[in-house]
Amino acid sequence: MSSTVISNIATLVTNDPSPDGSGSPLGTVRDAAVVIEGDRVVWTGESRKAPATDNRVDAAGRAVLPGFVDSHSHLVFAGDRTEEFNARMSGRPYGAGGIRTTVAATRAASDAELEANLTRFVTEALRQGTTTLETKSGYGLSTGEEARALRLAARHTDEVTFLGAHIVAPEYADDPAAYVELVTGEMLDACAPHARWIDVFCEQGAFDGDQARAILTAGRAKGLRPRVHANQLSYGPGVRLAVELDAASADHCTHLTDADVDALAGGNTVATLLPGAEFSTRAEWPDARRLLDAGVTVALSTDCNPGSSFTSSVPFCIALAVRDMGMTPDEAVWSATAGGAAALRRDDVGRLTPGAYADLVLLDAPSHVHLAYRPGVPLVAGVWRRGVRVV
Amino acid sequence: MSSTVISNIATLVTNDPSPDGSGSPLGTVRDAAVVIEGDRVVWTGESRKAPATDNRVDAAGRAVLPGFVDSHSHLVFAGDRTEEFNARMSGRPYGAGGIRTTVAATRAASDAELEANLTRFVTEALRQGTTTLETKSGYGLSTGEEARALRLAARHTDEVTFLGAHIVAPEYADDPAAYVELVTGEMLDACAPHARWIDVFCEQGAFDGDQARAILTAGRAKGLRPRVHANQLSYGPGVRLAVELDAASADHCTHLTDADVDALAGGNTVATLLPGAEFSTRAEWPDARRLLDAGVTVALSTDCNPGSSFTSSVPFCIALAVRDMGMTPDEAVWSATAGGAAALRRDDVGRLTPGAYADLVLLDAPSHVHLAYRPGVPLVAGVWRRGVRVV
Ligand SMILES: [Zn+2]
Ligand SMILES: [Zn+2]
Repeated sequence: MSSTVISNIATLVTNDPSPDGSGSPLGTVRDAAVVIEGDRVVWTGESRKAPATDNRVDAAGRAVLPGFVDSHSHLVFAGDRTEEFNARMSGRPYGAGGIRTTVAATRAASDAELEANLTRFVTEALRQGTTTLETKSGYGLSTGEEARALRLAARHTDEVTFLGAHIVAPEYADDPAAYVELVTGEMLDACAPHARWIDVFCEQGAFDGDQARAILTAGRAKGLRPRVHANQLSYGPGVRLAVELDAASADHCTHLTDADVDALAGGNTVATLLPGAEFSTRAEWPDARRLLDAGVTVALSTDCNPGSSFTSSVPFCIALAVRDMGMTPDEAVWSATAGGAAALRRDDVGRLTPGAYADLVLLDAPSHVHLAYRPGVPLVAGVWRRGVRVV
Repeated sequence: MSSTVISNIATLVTNDPSPDGSGSPLGTVRDAAVVIEGDRVVWTGESRKAPATDNRVDAAGRAVLPGFVDSHSHLVFAGDRTEEFNARMSGRPYGAGGIRTTVAATRAASDAELEANLTRFVTEALRQGTTTLETKSGYGLSTGEEARALRLAARHTDEVTFLGAHIVAPEYADDPAAYVELVTGEMLDACAPHARWIDVFCEQGAFDGDQARAILTAGRAKGLRPRVHANQLSYGPGVRLAVELDAASADHCTHLTDADVDALAGGNTVATLLPGAEFSTRAEWPDARRLLDAGVTVALSTDCNPGSSFTSSVPFCIALAVRDMGMTPDEAVWSATAGGAAALRRDDVGRLTPGAYADLVLLDAPSHVHLAYRPGVPLVAGVWRRGVRVV
């Protein structure tokens, strides 16, 4: 197995809290090197102490950090919603629109079309440094369509989420209870083999607390692990339900009571914040500072989808989180790497320590702070995934 | 002279208001082509009507627009201010800092170091679609240093601005009047041959209205054309002075009275908005909607500099302008192309019409709206400058 050292790294972010002794969870090392063997990290430390290896890459005084872990995206879809976005941002009325538009386009698309879209967006994310990517179904909303979406998604990532409960399928608009029965019965049976996670959009106009509980509990009985779209547009039971069911993550967390924050702080559920959605819908920002000060584990992800957040850029989300959500640059970078890993209950990604996957980002900048300091600038100059340089 | 057609363009933005007849100033053409001969555009129109050419490029259903015109940047500098930014965004105190830090680093840098920085940032901007770039002195603040900065800048762009009046030089802190005398005398004599424009930071703590008037008037007498850093941090006389002196642009325009807006609407001075500065300093947004509704010509630029706005990304500024400044996607794209050209009093860039320079951006998206719809995503897939493909 050949080994490679990346040396002359000005700032190495390991997310191993011990090395720098500063109490920062980033575990930054200056003048650092990282050694890769096969698909794993085998050594990190000061450049001058690096062991001999077969190959050498010169980082030339730039920064290296763990590949981003984007724990929330919706990439199995067809069509786009440019006109709807344009109308919203231009103050013009726009009929219809919404998730149903994407459901219709997705159902009408061939496997090859959906696969081409997936490939395109996964590649686009990888070029921007995302080496672990969760993605969901949720634009099929029938047994066959949801299972198809998950089968296609599973070709591109291990982190596949069944979101039959995105909205009530149009065919069941008059009988939501029957749709919940479908999702927890035949649809779940068809989908469970293709997914790792089950998710519900717990929100007014989508699924209430009781429906969400029924769906997540049924999924758990079939071996899926829960995560929840919770408290995005309004206050509600989603976050507390997520903690109660030991969901890996409660996603959005924009409208939180003190009881919600306390529940998160007392449980093992990560709060995944998705600033792209607030950016693209001109909504109120989630308060990351409040969560961090309460001791909650926070992840940052893109929510990439063609309706409410069509960004695939984790660096963009980091810049927003620092500007508008009260996170420090260090906290935002941690949340987009180790935080995302925690939201997927993974300890083999999101950190650069011996034994972790060699998923690395090389920035065209001397520090990770530049991800917030230089917003919008494509700073990702190199990406390694599983030890292989892909960008 | 060889000719090239770029065909199969889903959306072509020409900034020629006549073609689509919709009243939109973007002059968009669907299923379009553009023909380049030498360094110029010689034809635009529907793809099926395009004349025969020597070479053909397939845009494959993507969008083409004029290269961005970034009419406001500060790229002759050394050092960076990561620690200052990090402290500001992390709520930590930070001594010193500010423009003086960059002045000290710039004075200490060799020509080669400054030139390497310039090359790097001009190239970075070009990769993001900026084909015309204004840049300024202002971190030298002595006769020799300001002239050096302008000589170096002039190797990279025709749009060079003398900003000896950025702040009062540290050596003159106790005698600002003497510094104004230097700027309008010996420094101006040394600098005027290397610049096209003269600029003043008209602001409390920098230069007041009388000083700004003296400096701009002296510059005009030496053949330089005025532009003004106006009304960024507080209300003041900058905007009205700019209009009175027929400056090409009043830049920032964050704090405007109704009289300021009326003056802009009645004059020939463009209001150049720089949302990167408000983003990176967590400041109040300029109100683009108010200016547009009053009939003011608005430009969008980056203000790229290591202190208050270290972004070189015009697409990022477009996304912010749409989200937070009340611009429609069409307006923001116009302002970042034709608007920037107006702020430089140019009619040979910022539009794709016969006779204009062949400065084009090809997006990895079917429309220009995606620059706002897909924030943070590096969508620039191709760049032509003066008819030559450079990206
Ligand atoms: Zn979502
Ligand atoms: Zn400026």
